[in-house]
Formats: sequence, structure tokens, C-alpha cells
Amino acid sequence: MMDWLAVDWGTSHLRVWAMAQNGTVQTRRTNDCGMGTLTRDGFEPALLELAGDLLGTGKTPVVVCGMAGSRQGWAEAKYVATPCTPPGINRATHVQTGDPRLSVHILPGVKQTNPADVMRGEETQIAGFLALNPKFDGVICLPGTHTKWVHISAAEIVSFRTFMTGEMFALLSQRSVLRHTVEGDGWDAATFADAVSSGMSNPAELAARLFSIRAEGLLSDLHADYARARLSGLLIGAELAAARPYWLGQHVALIGDDKLCKAYADALGAQGLPVERTDAERMTLEGLKAAYAGLKETTQ
Amino acid sequence: MMDWLAVDWGTSHLRVWAMAQNGTVQTRRTNDCGMGTLTRDGFEPALLELAGDLLGTGKTPVVVCGMAGSRQGWAEAKYVATPCTPPGINRATHVQTGDPRLSVHILPGVKQTNPADVMRGEETQIAGFLALNPKFDGVICLPGTHTKWVHISAAEIVSFRTFMTGEMFALLSQRSVLRHTVEGDGWDAATFADAVSSGMSNPAELAARLFSIRAEGLLSDLHADYARARLSGLLIGAELAAARPYWLGQHVALIGDDKLCKAYADALGAQGLPVERTDAERMTLEGLKAAYAGLKETTQ
Repeated sequence: MMDWLAVDWGTSHLRVWAMAQNGTVQTRRTNDCGMGTLTRDGFEPALLELAGDLLGTGKTPVVVCGMAGSRQGWAEAKYVATPCTPPGINRATHVQTGDPRLSVHILPGVKQTNPADVMRGEETQIAGFLALNPKFDGVICLPGTHTKWVHISAAEIVSFRTFMTGEMFALLSQRSVLRHTVEGDGWDAATFADAVSSGMSNPAELAARLFSIRAEGLLSDLHADYARARLSGLLIGAELAAARPYWLGQHVALIGDDKLCKAYADALGAQGLPVERTDAERMTLEGLKAAYAGLKETTQ
Repeated sequence: MMDWLAVDWGTSHLRVWAMAQNGTVQTRRTNDCGMGTLTRDGFEPALLELAGDLLGTGKTPVVVCGMAGSRQGWAEAKYVATPCTPPGINRATHVQTGDPRLSVHILPGVKQTNPADVMRGEETQIAGFLALNPKFDGVICLPGTHTKWVHISAAEIVSFRTFMTGEMFALLSQRSVLRHTVEGDGWDAATFADAVSSGMSNPAELAARLFSIRAEGLLSDLHADYARARLSGLLIGAELAAARPYWLGQHVALIGDDKLCKAYADALGAQGLPVERTDAERMTLEGLKAAYAGLKETTQ
């Protein structure tokens, strides 16, 4: 029988796991009812539609992470300020629901004042990673639309920095003058490595080197695979130059999409840095489980 | 009576001037039938629709610059390689038309092999500027969607470099997570100046400082005017850092949109650089007039 519901509710997706009392996953379901598609009163119906049939007659604890806790989400779960441990259930926002079978707790994100920065969702993946690696001291990098570099010490998020690298890649590859030149989803590892190195050594030239991709497309039929790998490499290279204080001489763990983490691992590997890759979804689930464990403690 | 037709045909606009024999403008017309909206056989009808009633019974020379000469345009006018003078009518492509009253000449763009770069339209503005300033030696900067920095010596385009700064600003301000934070068209000059300086001194941090704009919007209600000026300043600052070999110790002339040129003039002025601002449309027309003068010479 289901014990509780783990929920990862991001901007573009909703993912639920029905958890058994022994801590195993009974059912996993996902759809694209992300926060971006919902108004405030749409969250409860969306959750019931995806997982309502899994509920019993009693109250089911629901532990949620991600954008559902933003100001425009289901209910605001206010950011906790660094330095802090990844916020647990005691910092969660309890949501009033119409359906009496639900007891919903939304985990907050983490904020930093200077430089101003925020995360929402990643803190739960970090909690999961730390639950599995309690003695970890070093840096966690979470590649994505908004890549995060997070300095961890003594189980705390000491500081972090977000780079819009992924979103810039998406905009440039899909909506800019480069979109025809980088078409498809091909890749060339050697071109990527060169571009990372060039992006790192001269990040100011980014906007000019991007246009050169277009010009080489026109003048010498640059292959789309090379063009795409170069676009990605230039952007990631500039990021690595700025993130050097985070990764230099550190133990780096990567949490994120497999393909993107492979690119980051290659780029960091070329700098002589060994990296550890993890399963992003597992980290999320472990983080939600750690939060639920806190809920059980407080109600016992 | 109209002597010839000057045409500036860009990606998003079509602009024609009916020119009198004494070199003055009889009529100016413009619409948004840019190259981006047309297939190859749509150019002649589009020109006739905008200016057909101005034609006499004889043959009217039509001198065209801009994207109409690209491979996807009306007829390809192949790039001329640097170093070169802005290409004149002798390098133009003569287009076969259905209407016997038209004699259409499309001016080519300019290409550079290393680093790979192209321009199409700007070379005509440069020709206009040089027609008015024949002894100019220095740098012309043409701010826009794809800002160009052009080194001019002895009336030749020696080298140039294009930055996607304007397109990145448009994508980030209209389509990224920053779009709500930078809403409107406000501005703050002091914030812009600070951001230029910060973008110049640490261009690698661009993607992180962009996300900080979003974070400050969430955490401290950063005003949209400040956010917008900062976004622009960070991008232009990174560009100025990379373009330093172009502008340092040089005489810089700006050709482009007034508001954008004002921003570049402010940014360069803060570096102690006096700049000259010009009327962009006038430069285009002077360039087309210089090309037409070449046509008259060759037919006399």
C-alpha cells in the first residue's frame, strides 16, 4: 500500500512517485503539466488527475519540490538564505487542499544575497546527493537551462552561482540567425573541445565568435554538427572561465541531464579534473525521501 | 522627373528613394516587405507595388543594397573579399526583370576569410560615409542586430568583426527568463555605465551576471529600467573588451539607430574616446548615390 507521494514539480513537468512503506517506488508517473501551464487553483486538480487513483481513504503525505513553491506556483515556499543545509520539511509550506486525503508540504528553494542568486528544485537534488554521500566536501555542478555551481562544506550550501548558459544555447540554436547553421542534434567532440578551450581563453569574444559560426556556414558550408558543438563549447568555455574559483582543485560532482553532463565532464576532464556523474532523477527522489524522513520524525 | 531609384532592401524592410537628376530626393517610401517575407519571384512585384507608379515609360536604373543580394534574395550578389574598397556598381549583379522599365543592379556585400565574417548593406553605408569623408582613416562602428567594427585605411575596408550583441539583447529581453524583469523600454544611464564597466572587466561572468538580474528581480524588486540598462551594458561591455584592438586610440565614427548609437557613444565616451555620430539613413543613400555615379560613368 502507498505510504506517501513524492512530487517533483518543475516549470515544464510534473513527476510523481508513489512510495511504499519500505521506501521503494510502487509507481512512477509523469506528464507535462508543469508550473508554466497552471494557475494557482490548477495545481490540486492536476495532481489529482495524475495520481488521484493512487490515494487511499486516509490522509496521504505529499512532499513536493521545485517551481510549484514559487510565488507564481501552488503556494509560496520562501527561499532559505545561504549558508544553509538544504532546507528540510521543517521549512516547508503546508498547503490547504480541497481534497481531505491530501497533506501537501512544499519544500523551499535557496537564495543568496551577494551576488544575488536563487535555486528551486536543485536544493532537493543536493539534499539527495548529500544523503547518499554524507561526508562530501567540494563542489556540485548542476548543468541545465540555468546551470548551478554549488560549494558544499560540512553538509551546508556555502555559496552558489547560476549561469544562463543552457538558456542561451537554446535561444541561439533555435531562435537566432544561427538556427539554420546548427540544425539537428549532431555533435563533434573534437570541435567541442577546441571551442571550450577558445571560450575559456577569450570569453569576451563570445558574441563575435558566435557570428563567425554563421559566417563560416555561409562562406565554407560549415557542417551543422561542428557548428552545434562549437556553439555549445564557446558558451560552456566562457562559463568554465568564470566558474574557475568553484572547480579549480576541487572534487566536482555533476547532477543533470546525461548528454549535457557528458559535455561538462569532457570539458572539465580536459582541464585535468576528475568528475563524478550521478543519476539526476535518483538525486531528486533521495532528496524528497530525506525530507519525508524528517516529516515522520516530527509527527512521531 | 525621376532619374533613378535608390533601394535599401534589408531583412525586415524595403525603402526606396526616387532620385531627381540633380541628385535630390523626390519621394521616399518604405514598407515592411523585407527579404525575410519574400521568395525569389516576389521581389519584382514587391518593388513595383511600392514604386511602380513612379516609373516613366523609359528604362529606370535601380540601385539596390542589402539582403536582397543574398543567396536567398532576389539574385545573389557575391561577396567581395577584404581588403577592398566598398564594392561599387562594377561589382553589382544585374537582375533580369519581367518589367522592361526596370534595370536593376544589386550591390554585393563584403566577406573576410579569417576570422570568417560577412556584411551586407553596411558596406554601402561605409561607402556613403567615405564619400562624405574621403580622407577618413580610423574605425567605423555600426551598432545593430549584428554590430560591425570596421577598420578603414586609405579608403579600404581592411578588416572587420561582427558581434551578435544586438540579437542577444533582443532574445534575452524578449524570450528569456529575464523578459519580465526587463519589461518596457526604460533606461538608467548610471546603471548602464556601471554594467559596461563590469562587462568589460569580467566578460566571462556574462551568463552569471545575467541570471543575477533575474535573481535581484525576485529578491529585491529590481526596477525594470535598471534591469534593462544593466542587461544592455553587460553585453556591450563584453563587446567593447573584445573590440578594444579596433577602438583603442582610434578615431571612431558611429553609424546606426540613434538610441543604440547614443548607448555606444556613452560607453566609448566613458573610455575617454571621442566619437562621431552620423545619420544612418543618409549614409545609405549617399552610398547608393556613389554607386549610381559609377553607373553613369560606365554608360557614358
